[in-house]
Parts: sequence; C-alpha cells; structure tokens
Amino acid sequence: MNRKGKGCNAERELIHSFWKIPGWTACRVAGSGSMKYPAPDIIAGNATRKLAIECKSTKSKYQYFEKEEIKQLLQYAQMFAAEPWLAIRFDRDKFYFLRPKDLKETQKKFVIDLNSIKEKGFLISHII
Amino acid sequence: MNRKGKGCNAERELIHSFWKIPGWTACRVAGSGSMKYPAPDIIAGNATRKLAIECKSTKSKYQYFEKEEIKQLLQYAQMFAAEPWLAIRFDRDKFYFLRPKDLKETQKKFVIDLNSIKEKGFLISHII
Repeated sequence: MNRKGKGCNAERELIHSFWKIPGWTACRVAGSGSMKYPAPDIIAGNATRKLAIECKSTKSKYQYFEKEEIKQLLQYAQMFAAEPWLAIRFDRDKFYFLRPKDLKETQKKFVIDLNSIKEKGFLISHII
Repeated sequence: MNRKGKGCNAERELIHSFWKIPGWTACRVAGSGSMKYPAPDIIAGNATRKLAIECKSTKSKYQYFEKEEIKQLLQYAQMFAAEPWLAIRFDRDKFYFLRPKDLKETQKKFVIDLNSIKEKGFLISHII
C-alpha cells in the first residue's frame, strides 16, 4: 500500500475510535494537501470541544513533521478555535495524542520518537 | 464533467468564498458518502461560529435532497454544535444559503425551487 493509502487507513481507524465515544463526531478532511488553505487531517468534536488533528502512522522509530505542516495546523486551530493535536501510531501500536509543543524541533523538521511519545503522549481515552 | 466533479467544484468555490472573509476557515469533508457516519460536505467556521454545510449545484429549477441526507446533516450539526445550512447554486448564479427547515417536504424527498430560494435564502455575506 502506498503512503497515501496508509495515511487514509490510519485516519479511518481514528475516526471509528471517536464515533465509539458517545456524543463525539469525527470526519476526514479532503485533500488537505491539495488546496492552498490550512486544514488538519481530521476534525473531531462534540458540543463543547473541537479537535484539529494531524494523523501519522509509521513503522520507523521516528515520526517527522514538516515545519509548514505544524504551522498550518496551529493556524487552522487558532482560527477555528480548536485544540491542535497530533495523533501518531508507531508500528501498529495504539494511537498516541501529542501536543505540537511537545515535538522536538530539529533544523529542518519536527520529530518525535517512540520512547518520548509514551512519556509525553496521551491515549484517546485520556484526552476526551 | 460528471456529477461528482461538479459537486466538488461547487464545494471548492464556496470554500474560496469563506477564506476571503477575514477570520473564517472552511474545508471539504472527504467521502461524506463513503463512511457510515453522518458528515456535511463542508465545515466552515471562525472562533465563535461553526457551520455544517451541504452543498449543491444544479442546472434544473429544482434542487432535491434525500431525506436521509438532511437527517444526517441535522444529526451531525447537533452533535458538533454547528449551524446546519444548505448552500445551493442554480444555473451558475450565486450560492444561496438555506436553513433545512425552509425546504419543502414531498413524499420522498425535500425540495427547493429557484423562485423560493430567492425569497427564503441568504447570500454568504448575510449569514456571516
């Protein structure tokens, strides 16, 4: 499966997880890369909270994010008054939710590794 | 162009219109028909308002909506605490925004016609 397909499957799984929680909705944003406007991968929410989520799944021990990607997530979240979150799954483990500020900044990208996410990340049941 | 392509183009136009308004965001929801959960075509919003929008473009004088489509829009909007809206463009005219309650109910569908929408509908500049 190509990277695009893998990303979509991860997003679908996360959407199912949100809909299992009473009162919560989640939907996938179309072509967040193809339009010139900032947009997250997933918008989740209930009557009182809105989450803008960038979603990644990797077999590596490191997950990188482009700086532009994080910038746009933060911009969208601020305009929409949503909480910005990253949802990251390492090697078919559970999704961990991380705040963008908890990424490590390198010269060209942001990164989080498998060990750090278990310290700094939250399971879905802990953030909602 | 097929109906799917036409629909997407109409949605993209509407998204451009929202982003032209300072403080407003809009994004297209992916495959709102392909997942089993309720979802609108477009989610628009700023820091204080959220709009769940079903978007249609037609060359006919009548625009029909499936009852299930309206039911799901209302369900999503209630759960997400968003305002439910229909955005309809007749024959390449402007988009008019209509509340679901202002559709006419027929035995099998909901419908709005070209004349009624100019009475009951709002331009984007009037709803935001």
